[in-house]
Amino acid sequence: MGKTEERLAALGLKLPPQLTLPPGVELTFPWVRVHKKHAYVSGHGPQNIDGSLAGPFGKVGGEVSLDDAQKAARLAALAMIASLKRELGELDRISAWLRIFGMVSSAPDFKQQPLVINGCTDLIVEVFGPERGNHARSAVGMAELPFGLPVELEAEVAIDS
Amino acid sequence: MGKTEERLAALGLKLPPQLTLPPGVELTFPWVRVHKKHAYVSGHGPQNIDGSLAGPFGKVGGEVSLDDAQKAARLAALAMIASLKRELGELDRISAWLRIFGMVSSAPDFKQQPLVINGCTDLIVEVFGPERGNHARSAVGMAELPFGLPVELEAEVAIDS
Amino acid sequence: MGKTEERLAALGLKLPPQLTLPPGVELTFPWVRVHKKHAYVSGHGPQNIDGSLAGPFGKVGGEVSLDDAQKAARLAALAMIASLKRELGELDRISAWLRIFGMVSSAPDFKQQPLVINGCTDLIVEVFGPERGNHARSAVGMAELPFGLPVELEAEVAIDS
Repeated sequence: MGKTEERLAALGLKLPPQLTLPPGVELTFPWVRVHKKHAYVSGHGPQNIDGSLAGPFGKVGGEVSLDDAQKAARLAALAMIASLKRELGELDRISAWLRIFGMVSSAPDFKQQPLVINGCTDLIVEVFGPERGNHARSAVGMAELPFGLPVELEAEVAIDS
Repeated sequence: MGKTEERLAALGLKLPPQLTLPPGVELTFPWVRVHKKHAYVSGHGPQNIDGSLAGPFGKVGGEVSLDDAQKAARLAALAMIASLKRELGELDRISAWLRIFGMVSSAPDFKQQPLVINGCTDLIVEVFGPERGNHARSAVGMAELPFGLPVELEAEVAIDS
Repeated sequence: MGKTEERLAALGLKLPPQLTLPPGVELTFPWVRVHKKHAYVSGHGPQNIDGSLAGPFGKVGGEVSLDDAQKAARLAALAMIASLKRELGELDRISAWLRIFGMVSSAPDFKQQPLVINGCTDLIVEVFGPERGNHARSAVGMAELPFGLPVELEAEVAIDS
């Protein structure tokens, strides 16, 4: 087990299996696209440990509380890490997180997107440490997200080899 | 004619000319920015074969149906390919699609952004094949898009030489 | 003083200090993430010369006029340049702007996001010149932005050394 997975285990974090899509939905793109020294991560939402999308669903600042939205951002970050593990085999290959685009399905007048996406940023830095885990970030308010997700994350990471 | 353009021809697909902007609009940035081995593709909407923006306009799930939105995503993908052709000269220079960010102008409660953007993803993979055409992807719901476009796409591709 | 800063001075432009966050907000990510020959720029809003977020706040096409939104986009571009100066030490190290993602908090039916983000694009090209300053760009309408910002910008630039 690599040092990144040892760190996940020490934090008591479990990676979810690949997303089980809602019925009738077919996605024809990879969750991670690797090219040379970069891995591009498709939009990920929060997942349950059985691979299904995790609720609560709806708009943050509306049906979904700030606290639940932060947890959703943390789960979505774990789902990205899980997809990277499946694609790269070994998470230690990730030398640097570069960019995370944090999207929050926002009820009218909800303006705390950065606090929501801190749930993702804090997890990435906890697991990868600041040198590898630090990343440029935006946290912004979307009109709608697929399947009623409260949070979706997209990312780019650098890989060593 | 390169193999990518042969494939476009075999599929009966025609690339539109450069976008004719609506009156009074001046855009001062390039449609494609090439730097070393990457090409960054500006936001593209669907275009008619005369170069004008293609309707229907409005929100998907509102004035614009799912079916029309998928067609718009397909046309916007063709517009990106056309801009890449003009910038690169030869589409065979594209060695890999890396990332597509799919934006859907969404009526309240419209949650099927992935199905809309499949119109783009499926076209890219049809034309470039899975090895070159696969890409990381997000499909998300915007409050508004320029000129009332239902779909806008941004992308990054790798080039060989 | 490098040539880029001489150009800023000749244009009468002053770079703001690092953002003073609103009370109670803690951000745990860097404003710029440098990796090898790329710098990834986190989401930036407009700033006053004292480092605070610059108003007016609200939706463009609603509380915020097109003219004020263009000025906000210009100020947000200056804030990005200021963060790059702090991270890179010398702005001449920027060899090319690659991509700017321009987000406009949009009132219903506001469709002129490209005109708003021209405030950013024009400034970047004025300061860096067309060869270095040209960039791929999207200009799109968000449901909400943090703290009620009318405009937020994210970017990627190439660095020489």
